[in-house]
Amino acid sequence: MPKKNALYCQSGGVTAVINATACGVIQTARSLPEVGTVFGAKNGIIGALREELIDTAQHSDEEIATLMHTPGGAFGSCRFKLKDPEAQKREYDRLVDVFEAHNIGYFLYNGGGDSSDTAHKVSQMAHQRGLDVMCIGVPKTIDNDLPVTDTCPGFGTTAKYIATSVMEASLDVESMSESSTKVFILEVMGRHAGWIAAAGGLAGKHHDEPPQIILFPEVPFDQAAFLERVKWSVDNHGYCSIVVSEGVQDKNGKFLADAGTTDAFGHAQLGGVATVIAQMVRDELGFKYHYAISDYLQRSARHLASKTDLEQAYAVGKRAMELAAEGHNAVMPVIRRLTEDPYTWDITTAELKDLANVEKKLPPEFITEDGFGITDACRRYLQPLIQGEAFPPFNADGLPHYVRLSQTLTPQKLPAFDI
Amino acid sequence: MPKKNALYCQSGGVTAVINATACGVIQTARSLPEVGTVFGAKNGIIGALREELIDTAQHSDEEIATLMHTPGGAFGSCRFKLKDPEAQKREYDRLVDVFEAHNIGYFLYNGGGDSSDTAHKVSQMAHQRGLDVMCIGVPKTIDNDLPVTDTCPGFGTTAKYIATSVMEASLDVESMSESSTKVFILEVMGRHAGWIAAAGGLAGKHHDEPPQIILFPEVPFDQAAFLERVKWSVDNHGYCSIVVSEGVQDKNGKFLADAGTTDAFGHAQLGGVATVIAQMVRDELGFKYHYAISDYLQRSARHLASKTDLEQAYAVGKRAMELAAEGHNAVMPVIRRLTEDPYTWDITTAELKDLANVEKKLPPEFITEDGFGITDACRRYLQPLIQGEAFPPFNADGLPHYVRLSQTLTPQKLPAFDI
Repeated sequence: MPKKNALYCQSGGVTAVINATACGVIQTARSLPEVGTVFGAKNGIIGALREELIDTAQHSDEEIATLMHTPGGAFGSCRFKLKDPEAQKREYDRLVDVFEAHNIGYFLYNGGGDSSDTAHKVSQMAHQRGLDVMCIGVPKTIDNDLPVTDTCPGFGTTAKYIATSVMEASLDVESMSESSTKVFILEVMGRHAGWIAAAGGLAGKHHDEPPQIILFPEVPFDQAAFLERVKWSVDNHGYCSIVVSEGVQDKNGKFLADAGTTDAFGHAQLGGVATVIAQMVRDELGFKYHYAISDYLQRSARHLASKTDLEQAYAVGKRAMELAAEGHNAVMPVIRRLTEDPYTWDITTAELKDLANVEKKLPPEFITEDGFGITDACRRYLQPLIQGEAFPPFNADGLPHYVRLSQTLTPQKLPAFDI
Repeated sequence: MPKKNALYCQSGGVTAVINATACGVIQTARSLPEVGTVFGAKNGIIGALREELIDTAQHSDEEIATLMHTPGGAFGSCRFKLKDPEAQKREYDRLVDVFEAHNIGYFLYNGGGDSSDTAHKVSQMAHQRGLDVMCIGVPKTIDNDLPVTDTCPGFGTTAKYIATSVMEASLDVESMSESSTKVFILEVMGRHAGWIAAAGGLAGKHHDEPPQIILFPEVPFDQAAFLERVKWSVDNHGYCSIVVSEGVQDKNGKFLADAGTTDAFGHAQLGGVATVIAQMVRDELGFKYHYAISDYLQRSARHLASKTDLEQAYAVGKRAMELAAEGHNAVMPVIRRLTEDPYTWDITTAELKDLANVEKKLPPEFITEDGFGITDACRRYLQPLIQGEAFPPFNADGLPHYVRLSQTLTPQKLPAFDI
């Protein structure tokens, strides 16, 4: 059987463990006789279109192994969504040219919901044109909002980091609350789904332990109820620890972060939802507050990876390469929960069409009746995903051993292409 | 020799390792025949005044050992500064009453510059009144701004956390920069001194690695030079990673964070300096940005403690208790650097009067000529302080084993006291 090469793309926001998936793809490819080399597209689909391909044959087995403990996207990622083949025929034609010029028989697309859609469209196009290219989606997103799969690689590590940070910062504010800060607010990602915010709830074993309040995008913000609970928490615990999702909306569906504030020059004021909440606490209750915005820290915190998450990230990469080599097309390896306590899981296969553009929100039964906490059902779902530690190796200088792989491009064979 | 009891106070902003100092105090006290029990003042000097004392005899050796890996202030801290004995005679009289009621012969005050001042004043008052109470300051502050001592316990862990976070978030933004975020900004603490901001510089080995820009409180902000360097970095590296101290000021000494912005109702707008910098990057250069504000996360991140810092935190607590028992007064155990590579250190003794109210800023020779980076001399100073890992134990649920000690108060003997 003639060898075909693989093209691997990282897409969308990266995670602390997306490179573990790349590691799974490349290590598996090196063991399969059907697979030639793996090309990493530089900056995802953009590099595929520009014929900017990183031949991973340049990287030794030792270098590839460092992907297991290095955050960020080793080949670069992008935010670029292919439209329908009819609307963007030029791009699809170019992909065919690149596939043919580099003998690509396996196309692996590592991303979230939008990326599943892109992978699905490429697979349809390949099928229509009779190309012998297997298109496989590979799941990844800290937002944990893909359907079908039990969880999304990347989420477990973010969840562990956020829950730990809430524990730590809550111990801090508790220490200070008698004479200083009484309210601590942590803003987390998740514009449309509250999975990361919910993970903050793991910091306490029950609803009265910190965080005393979680604000979810799924629950319309009720200012009066919120302020009442902040006051109750300060009156009863001495302080209040709050986790707020960036996606919290008012009852009209308007993001709280878009509060319409302007600076001295009338420009729209930047500032996350944490700022809005902090201001509300100050103006309405007069409590001293602190707030943190974890932003990229929460999705790159490889130093506190969940071992479970890391293993799942590797497993989906491995299985994706196997599925491609076995001749599957338009599918994605997904994680299936077999048992909950102890948590066991395996990898099954889903159709890309069932994953594209579907957002899995936090179900109502995961949110407490008052809207400010997580239920036991939610804990049972989340807890296994943060289990186990997988610290990176540390150098003698006290910092993690993170590695930048060479991104030397393979010689181009086609004319330049503007995107 | 009759036993005397010890009173231990935590003061000011807490750190990820201040409880390791408490552990050093209590474990040492348990081994010294001169020392009876150690009382932890609930919420620092406020608890001392209110006679709210936590008798640590209620805690087993195993419980005391958990202080080594639990962040926050186990007995509570406060922001409360005693004025001169003449101005606040009532408070000093009360302290004498509490000392006498509970047979306190050793007063250990664990804090930063303000706290050294308080400990010094209490020692002067005790001397004037002929009290047999040894007053010892114990160093602590993530700001690293105490004079005399080589470093301040708490700083090394914050430095390790910030340097690691900068490495991680910079790998993230680098991955995204081709089609999305080009500028990442991390706001760190240090209102008057740039030690924490400087620690962010350890993320790269030289000035062109991320962070490409550090903004220090010691360097007046030059908007034109800053924007030029952001643009240069994006043009040459594809992205720009920035660490900004909350204390950055313009050439007139005005904090950038106090940019005078107002909300729709004309209220002063909250928002850290990261917001101001982000807005500037957007308005003047048009780059997509992200920013994180680490706030309390940076001072409570026990999960990523520096082993060196943890050992120093314990050592100053141990030595403080020994100094008190040996009859020293108005002193503080401080850290002395013996050799730099490998880093060796010991504990010596400084006079409290030399530490009170003196702020050690980043010296000019630690800042590169362009004002945006750290010099090799700065690296040589900082690097040893983040060396070694001291992860906390983790529970099977995937979270660190942090412990809240019982704060049951010892029976009060005096009338109530309002502060």
